Amino acid sequence: MRQLIIASTSTVHGSGYLDYILEELSNLFKNTNTILFVPYARPSGISHDDYTKIANNAFSKIGKTAVGLHTFENPKEAIENAEGIFTGGGNTFVLVDQLYKNDLIVPLKAAINTGTPYLGTSAGSNICGLTIKTTNDMPIVYPPSFNALGAVPFNINPHYLDPDKNSKHMGETRETRIKEFHHYNTQPVIGLREGSWLSVQNDDITIRGALTARIFEHNKPPYEVNPGTNLNHLN
Amino acid sequence: MRQLIIASTSTVHGSGYLDYILEELSNLFKNTNTILFVPYARPSGISHDDYTKIANNAFSKIGKTAVGLHTFENPKEAIENAEGIFTGGGNTFVLVDQLYKNDLIVPLKAAINTGTPYLGTSAGSNICGLTIKTTNDMPIVYPPSFNALGAVPFNINPHYLDPDKNSKHMGETRETRIKEFHHYNTQPVIGLREGSWLSVQNDDITIRGALTARIFEHNKPPYEVNPGTNLNHLN
Repeated sequence: MRQLIIASTSTVHGSGYLDYILEELSNLFKNTNTILFVPYARPSGISHDDYTKIANNAFSKIGKTAVGLHTFENPKEAIENAEGIFTGGGNTFVLVDQLYKNDLIVPLKAAINTGTPYLGTSAGSNICGLTIKTTNDMPIVYPPSFNALGAVPFNINPHYLDPDKNSKHMGETRETRIKEFHHYNTQPVIGLREGSWLSVQNDDITIRGALTARIFEHNKPPYEVNPGTNLNHLN
Repeated sequence: MRQLIIASTSTVHGSGYLDYILEELSNLFKNTNTILFVPYARPSGISHDDYTKIANNAFSKIGKTAVGLHTFENPKEAIENAEGIFTGGGNTFVLVDQLYKNDLIVPLKAAINTGTPYLGTSAGSNICGLTIKTTNDMPIVYPPSFNALGAVPFNINPHYLDPDKNSKHMGETRETRIKEFHHYNTQPVIGLREGSWLSVQNDDITIRGALTARIFEHNKPPYEVNPGTNLNHLN
């Protein structure tokens, strides 16, 4: 059975790394002692080792160990043998580039589809969509493709931000950007605010957390859905 | 002699399209009656025709006409024959994708290097840098390359935004993103706030407008430079 948590962010304002979601993670990883951590997205360019320490520190609070994918000689085998997988946030382009360069897209898809529990936050959630074309990140490297894992039949926009009506900044709002996306792409986009996540249980996809999520469907006005809403109809 | 204006934005808060910079444009295009407008970036997915009308309306205030590149059967020839060129803002990925698909990167470089006056705003400024890897835009299409015109020997970050110290949002600040860029790239990045522009006269590059610009050099702390500062030493 497929089991994923696809979270907007690792950290909500005012609390520690993964703290807001640890109870959920205890459940997702209930049969998992060691979690394979994919550190490739390197937020602020942090080293793979240092990033893994941050993940391990959070998981130690629920009695789990996180081991960095970069420490394995054969990362493909590491994914195939993983009891559970967590892909952390950072830069989505860097993450996807590394996954392609190490030939890990197919093994990661396979692991998810055969029931290895998966947690993604931010960039690690972006890659669960059909493509990374709705990431907020800066394209600091050129990856071989924008195609992603397709663990859900739509795209994710993590860290979703409502327009600031008082802003004098003329850059595009998030909503404008996603509407531009729909001039060239037809799949739905789920705008996940910080503190929200998608829970995937096999083919059941549910919005979780305290906030509503904003759904953008092609040729429809965007709309809000409450926590608990099932998104199985979207594709 | 090369002559470019590389502007952060087309529009500053509270005024009309290009209004804040029309006097400069009168000077840049002093020997130009008809400006070739590159509408490819399509902000909010606006049509090429509608976008060209907006540009033409602004240029009519200084007695010029803007003609859309999309109306020419042979866009390469249109660029070669242009008296002046303006590339408008919108989505940088869409813009670059169209330029590559129509084989226009080389003719556009050649036009700029042989002295055709060029105005870029936002996405149209991003493409003046070495690459588009410091755009703020959403990667809604996958272009064949992130390499750009290289009219200046560094990268541009238009609509540069200072960190909001009161924000509870956990997404990366612009500064964090540009610092991540420098983990993978070495060229300087010029953060141009809205209302700022670079004036290029042959190889002389000067910050213009009322605001300071923020310069990010590889392995150096970022710093501010005043309007009037010459950037010729940066590369």
